[in-house]
Amino acid sequence: MNFKGIIQYEGTRYHGWQKQKNTQNTIQQKVEDVLSRMVDCPVEVLASGRTDAGVHAWEQVFHVHLDTAHDGTCIREYLNTYLPSDIRVLAMEPTQPRFHSRLQAVGKTYCYRMNLGRIAPVFDRDYVWHLPGELDLKAMESGAALLEGEHDFAPFSSVGKTRKSTIRLIREIQIQKQGDRIALYFTGNGFLYNMVRLLTGTLVEIGQHKKEPEDILRIFATGSRQEAGFMAPAKGLMLMKVYYEESEFQSKKGLDVF
Amino acid sequence: MNFKGIIQYEGTRYHGWQKQKNTQNTIQQKVEDVLSRMVDCPVEVLASGRTDAGVHAWEQVFHVHLDTAHDGTCIREYLNTYLPSDIRVLAMEPTQPRFHSRLQAVGKTYCYRMNLGRIAPVFDRDYVWHLPGELDLKAMESGAALLEGEHDFAPFSSVGKTRKSTIRLIREIQIQKQGDRIALYFTGNGFLYNMVRLLTGTLVEIGQHKKEPEDILRIFATGSRQEAGFMAPAKGLMLMKVYYEESEFQSKKGLDVF
Repeated sequence: MNFKGIIQYEGTRYHGWQKQKNTQNTIQQKVEDVLSRMVDCPVEVLASGRTDAGVHAWEQVFHVHLDTAHDGTCIREYLNTYLPSDIRVLAMEPTQPRFHSRLQAVGKTYCYRMNLGRIAPVFDRDYVWHLPGELDLKAMESGAALLEGEHDFAPFSSVGKTRKSTIRLIREIQIQKQGDRIALYFTGNGFLYNMVRLLTGTLVEIGQHKKEPEDILRIFATGSRQEAGFMAPAKGLMLMKVYYEESEFQSKKGLDVF
Repeated sequence: MNFKGIIQYEGTRYHGWQKQKNTQNTIQQKVEDVLSRMVDCPVEVLASGRTDAGVHAWEQVFHVHLDTAHDGTCIREYLNTYLPSDIRVLAMEPTQPRFHSRLQAVGKTYCYRMNLGRIAPVFDRDYVWHLPGELDLKAMESGAALLEGEHDFAPFSSVGKTRKSTIRLIREIQIQKQGDRIALYFTGNGFLYNMVRLLTGTLVEIGQHKKEPEDILRIFATGSRQEAGFMAPAKGLMLMKVYYEESEFQSKKGLDVF
């Protein structure tokens, strides 16, 4: 039986989502370990995409084929009993045999959070980037508008030359401000490796007047990674939602969680 | 020179605010260590009151006499450089020679946070009490109304018999709900040892229909600790604000931080 799971995690303590040879300490590994114990045979859990070390997920989606008589609720409770408290399975339910969490995803929303206050926040310290000072939000919004749409985002990526397409569609970049807290929401049909952190770094440089909004056009024109901004730190980044229906993707429902 | 400091901390890793013989791991000790190093002699830092192990502070207030030529900003920055990231000094300024953070406090607000959802929260897991299930908020509000006012709160305290007065005034108990999240705000002129956690436990029992709101009257009448409810866990509790002016105390300004 194929199951679709929705999982929330704090990435601070882990070497990212994806299983690795040199460490057991990845979120994928933790989930596979618990499920393998439950069904008493090796299990592979595949997510909509990897998240890096220190990156968080509000709603990551995975799928897993399990030979079990247990229902989704029962499996979810089993997982939440044995997983550490910084990983929680929010939902687990049977799905079509051919459902694939990565290949069938039609879009995602990421959130990047910053705190501009003079003093670093205590309670959010692992979830936001502390960046004391002013940011020109108007300039950042102009820059964000130039990033929206379909572009070759190769300059905003840490992958080197690749034969795979680096063209992606960003539907919307939304900038929210509440006191000293800034949140950037990126919604698109897909994101390259480190793309959100590089877009954030570039928008921050625009907000600090180290770059002009129009520099975005030049970055796209040259296609050069060197022209883009620096990479914002991992801990401010959160995968918010993965979309499997175009309709859902349009409405961005359920995102006002922070 | 006498300085007034405002300090925020996550209590999770500490054995509470107050210095102890058996451990160096208290917040008071951490602050004293840094300041002693700065002025190169022993220093005593006194807060508005102790907080227990696992209890947090949004704005705890302390005072400290320092023989130094540095100004408040400079001392604040020195502290935030050397204190761990779960303790931040929000403000530090010279005050009257006779200012005393505990003796001159005229009131405090505490917040107790719960999450009623089926699944434990990931990002707030050390700041809220996870209590899955329903709570009858109407009943809790009736109970809270009976707690407001001036009463002998001895049955809501972990101190044994004492010759000191156990009469306190609760100005207001406010209950806020947002989705699965509940926050109880307690504002009063002073709180006995464990009083907020015992009041919370009692209100929760009322919300679960294990007690009636009117049981509050019986608890006050008998004065018996056994009649009151159980003690809610430390991690949900946060000292929000300490008041030194009656006017401030009335307005409860600056409390909508969560």
